[in-house]
Amino acid sequence: MTVDKLPSSAQLKTPKGTRDWVGPDLHLRDYIFQVAGDTFKRHGGVPLDTPVFELRSVLSEKYGEDQRLIYNVEDQGGELCSLRYDLTVPFARWLAMHSNYKQVKRYQIAKVYRRDQPAISRGRLREFYQCDFDIAGVYDPMIPDSEIIRVIFEVFRALKLEVIVKVNHRKILDGLFMVAGVPQDKLRPISSAVDKLDKAAWDEVKQEMVEEKGLPEAVADRVGEYVRRSGTMAQTLEVLRSNPDLMANEDIKAGAADMELLAQYLQAMGVSDIVSFDLSLARGLDYYTGLIYEVVAKPQDGEALQVGSVAAGGRYDNLVGMYGKRPVPCVGLSFGVDRVFTILAARQGGKKKSDIAREIDVYVIAAGGKGFNGLLPERMAVASQLWDAGIRAEFHPKVKPKMLQQFNASVDVPVSVILGEEELEAGQVRIKDARSGDMEAIEKNRGELVKREDMVAEVKKLLARVSLADN
Amino acid sequence: MTVDKLPSSAQLKTPKGTRDWVGPDLHLRDYIFQVAGDTFKRHGGVPLDTPVFELRSVLSEKYGEDQRLIYNVEDQGGELCSLRYDLTVPFARWLAMHSNYKQVKRYQIAKVYRRDQPAISRGRLREFYQCDFDIAGVYDPMIPDSEIIRVIFEVFRALKLEVIVKVNHRKILDGLFMVAGVPQDKLRPISSAVDKLDKAAWDEVKQEMVEEKGLPEAVADRVGEYVRRSGTMAQTLEVLRSNPDLMANEDIKAGAADMELLAQYLQAMGVSDIVSFDLSLARGLDYYTGLIYEVVAKPQDGEALQVGSVAAGGRYDNLVGMYGKRPVPCVGLSFGVDRVFTILAARQGGKKKSDIAREIDVYVIAAGGKGFNGLLPERMAVASQLWDAGIRAEFHPKVKPKMLQQFNASVDVPVSVILGEEELEAGQVRIKDARSGDMEAIEKNRGELVKREDMVAEVKKLLARVSLADN
Repeated sequence: MTVDKLPSSAQLKTPKGTRDWVGPDLHLRDYIFQVAGDTFKRHGGVPLDTPVFELRSVLSEKYGEDQRLIYNVEDQGGELCSLRYDLTVPFARWLAMHSNYKQVKRYQIAKVYRRDQPAISRGRLREFYQCDFDIAGVYDPMIPDSEIIRVIFEVFRALKLEVIVKVNHRKILDGLFMVAGVPQDKLRPISSAVDKLDKAAWDEVKQEMVEEKGLPEAVADRVGEYVRRSGTMAQTLEVLRSNPDLMANEDIKAGAADMELLAQYLQAMGVSDIVSFDLSLARGLDYYTGLIYEVVAKPQDGEALQVGSVAAGGRYDNLVGMYGKRPVPCVGLSFGVDRVFTILAARQGGKKKSDIAREIDVYVIAAGGKGFNGLLPERMAVASQLWDAGIRAEFHPKVKPKMLQQFNASVDVPVSVILGEEELEAGQVRIKDARSGDMEAIEKNRGELVKREDMVAEVKKLLARVSLADN
Repeated sequence: MTVDKLPSSAQLKTPKGTRDWVGPDLHLRDYIFQVAGDTFKRHGGVPLDTPVFELRSVLSEKYGEDQRLIYNVEDQGGELCSLRYDLTVPFARWLAMHSNYKQVKRYQIAKVYRRDQPAISRGRLREFYQCDFDIAGVYDPMIPDSEIIRVIFEVFRALKLEVIVKVNHRKILDGLFMVAGVPQDKLRPISSAVDKLDKAAWDEVKQEMVEEKGLPEAVADRVGEYVRRSGTMAQTLEVLRSNPDLMANEDIKAGAADMELLAQYLQAMGVSDIVSFDLSLARGLDYYTGLIYEVVAKPQDGEALQVGSVAAGGRYDNLVGMYGKRPVPCVGLSFGVDRVFTILAARQGGKKKSDIAREIDVYVIAAGGKGFNGLLPERMAVASQLWDAGIRAEFHPKVKPKMLQQFNASVDVPVSVILGEEELEAGQVRIKDARSGDMEAIEKNRGELVKREDMVAEVKKLLARVSLADN
């Protein structure tokens, strides 16, 4: 770099819809990743990491009209590439490349990219994290599907976030539309109108169906009657079973059989309580073929925050087959990490630390009177001894720091190791619980005198006591 | 997605110079990250995560002729962006945005992008990881610089990789060139020629200086005489100190004073042994202003692998100032994670597990004779009990799996929990150390009978015994 050239147009910001992560935000985000990753591993998940961009041909024709939201990499010669839009398509591409993998549970936690209008307050960015868990392969019906819901339950239980898992079945939904009289070519448009029922009133949705999508009003009314039903698995199944017109439809019959199994398995895994069987749930993406679900957070008392769904997914049995000869049925789950983050951060509220607060166990301090030389090499040697023992330690980066400077720099560090010339000559240092003391206290009571060779052991004991007292 | 449309041109590969990470490779890579991250935190480092692309203006004019290797994001309207080329420039941009941060140690482990010719066998890709630790702010001379070398020492000690840290000082190098008679405008070109001395013979380098860069032969010879010296800190300092011509140069004098301090601090931190003061070390990037260093791995006996430097960095005091009014002196370090990975993977050698091997503690097995119904809900309930206790568990995803199927699926899983109808009715299950047994052994001895409510505790005890026996 030519250091004398100042780039005139360099704006000091991150690109629109992106952000830096640092400090407490980063720790909270990593905590969410940790909880999710541990849960996935507990269920036999293996991690996968794919490139941030894929060949453009791999992404094309996968996302319908959302295709326009894909970020392309500039054509600078060579292959045409685009940034990944989700983690499902890279997973399907990877699966198709490895036809020897018969059954696999994979998870991936990574950033994805969408040229969408950002809504930062609601946790919607152009660069954001997804956290996906998918089960691929041929299994007996609904067994992996129910395990996915168990995974959802475990993750949100660990995050102490109360959620409802809304479920539905693509075959039931399509069957309902057919019985209501929706023509075959209008199934997807009507499905996407119905999907808005969680946010819009029935009248609006009906208007869209009739006026925009040209559905006869009587058909729209029948659709409304069918899909506006939700309840426990047993309740909604009863709605279907008790209506012979519906059960005469092969798709509804097959879907209801799946949901019957699901109800039984959810019961066995102890997660029936969080599930609501909601016939209006439709999910946007075309590639789902069976169970679909969407997870919404229950607002706490007084919480106005609406962040949409915090996780979603479903069964997609035909996607992988698009890349090769081999169809691989899959069922998957995607967590909206940034939305979960937004809720948890809002609940944490005010107690926010500095973005650059570091976590250190021991501060190594030099003390001395007249002619004091700062004892820098000695502080370095003592810090090195602590680092060797895996203890997080710092010292003041000045040759001759004043006591006040060292004291200010050591705020929030629980233990001090204090060096003095006389003690060092006798092969000793002082260690001190530094949490409560002000500087005068340190000046008066410089802590417990220990031999240099016992220092690490004594510091560890003191850290254990401090940590106990803090919890 | 329209599932009936097959994308004709979808090639089943990742883009050139990129790869998927999964299985043992991913675990080894994450282990390297873990070791580095723990070390950075031990020294008070705070993590930073920046967007994968930056405003193009932030990256422009930072990389000299390597600018052409930057990946641009296509102009689809809105801001012009490019993928990050390294982690240093995003760090400098972030620092410049936060003028209240006076002193900070930050680390970042993330992928960077270069449109370079990939050399996969040597661990050089177009998408690759960097792992950076930088200390920013005004400190007394050489204190953070020496801590960086201590960090290098700790990371490679933990990775059990023997390394040599070659160090030099930009001021000394420039001073040597000036004393040798290199004109001011040829300093950087001659510096980049000298940088090749670790790979090329002196004759070749001299030829480049004289024929390509137009340096008089006598000047080139003097350069050669000066820079082809290396040794311990003390030895190379003595080479400088004993030559009055050199010490008369202000730059050399200032650089030597820095290196004198560094020698003293490295001694105090116990890391003198791994350092070689090499006057030919030049480092490509123009933005270094003081100490520079490059870490090379010592090949083990019989190891032919040459992967270049495994870490490198230096002091860059003017970079942050380019983005704002405030100069922030920095010294930093970048690990070549993929190169370290290549060495460690080669040393691990043959004992490679399947890419999709998962790590599970307990396999829940159903056993039964005639009229056996598979006990699926019971297996689900027992697995849920184990998951609730944080134990990694699986069961066979068939309604009525055969014993042989369950046995084959549970290979490598240390503990089995075996369910039988009679035992379940009595509120009991069997638990069994499954490492040594073949299927017949399981058929004969179905393990220890325990009460359902004691199962978790007994499984934990057995897992502890198994883990002890394995270590």
